[in-house]
Amino acid sequence: MPTSEQIKTALDKVLVPGIKRSLVKMNLVKDVTVNDGKVEVTLANAALMKEAQEWLKTKVNQVVLDMEGVKEMRLDFTEAKPKELNSVKNVIAIMSGKGGVGKSLVSSLTAIALRRQGFEVGILDADITGPSIPKMFGLSGLPPMSESGMLPALSPSGIEVMSINLLLPAEDDAVIWRGPLIGQAITQFWTEVLWGNLDYLIVDLPPGTADAPLTVMQQLPISGVIIVFTPQDLTAMVVRKAVKMARQMSKPILGVIENMSYLYIPEIDKKMEIFGKSHAAEMARAAGAPLLGQLPIDPGLVTLCDEGNIEHYNAEAYSAFTQKLLDVLLKK
Amino acid sequence: MPTSEQIKTALDKVLVPGIKRSLVKMNLVKDVTVNDGKVEVTLANAALMKEAQEWLKTKVNQVVLDMEGVKEMRLDFTEAKPKELNSVKNVIAIMSGKGGVGKSLVSSLTAIALRRQGFEVGILDADITGPSIPKMFGLSGLPPMSESGMLPALSPSGIEVMSINLLLPAEDDAVIWRGPLIGQAITQFWTEVLWGNLDYLIVDLPPGTADAPLTVMQQLPISGVIIVFTPQDLTAMVVRKAVKMARQMSKPILGVIENMSYLYIPEIDKKMEIFGKSHAAEMARAAGAPLLGQLPIDPGLVTLCDEGNIEHYNAEAYSAFTQKLLDVLLKK
Repeated sequence: MPTSEQIKTALDKVLVPGIKRSLVKMNLVKDVTVNDGKVEVTLANAALMKEAQEWLKTKVNQVVLDMEGVKEMRLDFTEAKPKELNSVKNVIAIMSGKGGVGKSLVSSLTAIALRRQGFEVGILDADITGPSIPKMFGLSGLPPMSESGMLPALSPSGIEVMSINLLLPAEDDAVIWRGPLIGQAITQFWTEVLWGNLDYLIVDLPPGTADAPLTVMQQLPISGVIIVFTPQDLTAMVVRKAVKMARQMSKPILGVIENMSYLYIPEIDKKMEIFGKSHAAEMARAAGAPLLGQLPIDPGLVTLCDEGNIEHYNAEAYSAFTQKLLDVLLKK
Repeated sequence: MPTSEQIKTALDKVLVPGIKRSLVKMNLVKDVTVNDGKVEVTLANAALMKEAQEWLKTKVNQVVLDMEGVKEMRLDFTEAKPKELNSVKNVIAIMSGKGGVGKSLVSSLTAIALRRQGFEVGILDADITGPSIPKMFGLSGLPPMSESGMLPALSPSGIEVMSINLLLPAEDDAVIWRGPLIGQAITQFWTEVLWGNLDYLIVDLPPGTADAPLTVMQQLPISGVIIVFTPQDLTAMVVRKAVKMARQMSKPILGVIENMSYLYIPEIDKKMEIFGKSHAAEMARAAGAPLLGQLPIDPGLVTLCDEGNIEHYNAEAYSAFTQKLLDVLLKK
């Protein structure tokens, strides 16, 4: 007769319809009891449509009854909301204050680096009016949802993603909302999305220090902030505003990253600092946090992002960054 | 005996303390009457501190009494608010949806182009959480203000500027405000700043389609919108959101500008499209508006911006842009 642990291991192979992650990783298995060959499984119904529940019922029955020693099987669904089921160990906010410095890029590269190490990772795209994440990962289409919540999209390498752009009829539809609605959308992405079990949730913040970052810092249990900047003086000034905001909200800054540091021109074997001299040392000092990397402008990466293939990226500067990032995150 | 017109011409030489523009250009001269050698001048007191009013009283008395045929002179101040005095012919919003594409740069270059043609020009920096304009023009310091309003700063070439960064104790202080406060600040920049007489007010919008652009489009009499974008697909998608917003708010799009189109490498005499292939034709079509220019990445311009010397800029690509811009604006 199997133990309840063995049954849970078997259930880890049952994928939730609409997202190719297992029942167990989505934290939908509430209870498993085994008594005299009789197995009782209780699943949470969060974010599951009726059809998905039916499908899961059949599938789980099949998997459990196939196990040696199981004579009888009973499956119940219990009402549950995503926020009661979500278990997220670390929430990392990627912030800048300034637009167009590569917050979404750094959010994605951070998630990919952690995923390649085998961690369970999600990205919450908090940029409600200018969401970039789904396009970079080639994701589109309305995620499955029920009255109790919705499921994130899953990238090819298994990163969960939630973004307003998945919910819009067309990817270039404008979300013309005032701040309170934007804050509400972000809160919903945190409480009404079934993230399940995650080691890291990366939050991609929009530019500025207004509603979106405020809501994220007030409503989400942020473990730390990563600050992104580019070499321009002008950018440095605006980014220091974000550093001050993180300080004022008592959120630890885990590290800083300089993006668009330089452009390498192979024809003349030269690194050009097209946006000016690096501010890396100065920004690390201002933030009181380590420099995680200096990423070059990489036209190849631009293409991968535009094609939705960011997960194929591999480059030397990126490896150095991920190594430092992992050092910082895993030491924590 | 001088006519009231001649007296006004003389008053055009009296500069308002704190901003080196004349009483007449600031629209502070409410009334001038001449009767039998007796001149009566009425000035509005908007945004003028007591000391400034005293100084102006002495100065205007001097100028008028120096004119031939004037025997007696009387000067009165009348209560007035900036919004009753401002006379702005065209309000042009520079918009993108996406951050970091160069909205502030295009706002500044547009203002400079118009100023070089002799127009009276101002810039309203509506980017409350990431304001860049004062630094590009080398402006800092608290502008003069009274209970009734405040004066803008004046750039070396005579462009009026108002930005939250002029009001902050330190340029890198964070403005951690929710949307309604941001909308209110922008409205105040429109109603409580004494812009005076302007041919063009350029409004530099922040990224996104939330409070700031909404407030500007709802509260300010926008004559037209200029859309800025960069070659990335990802950017094009977000910028199309801004185009849709302008459409939904029934604001005419005057033109589109591609920034960071390419980088010219003199060593190999080659234009590199480092952010991908141009989307200029596609964006012009999407916006239903002419392409005003394709600006390259110019490390020299980056330096001028960082040094606060943007008004010294002169380059070929910029001349082509200003020519098209003027064609569009002056034909209107």
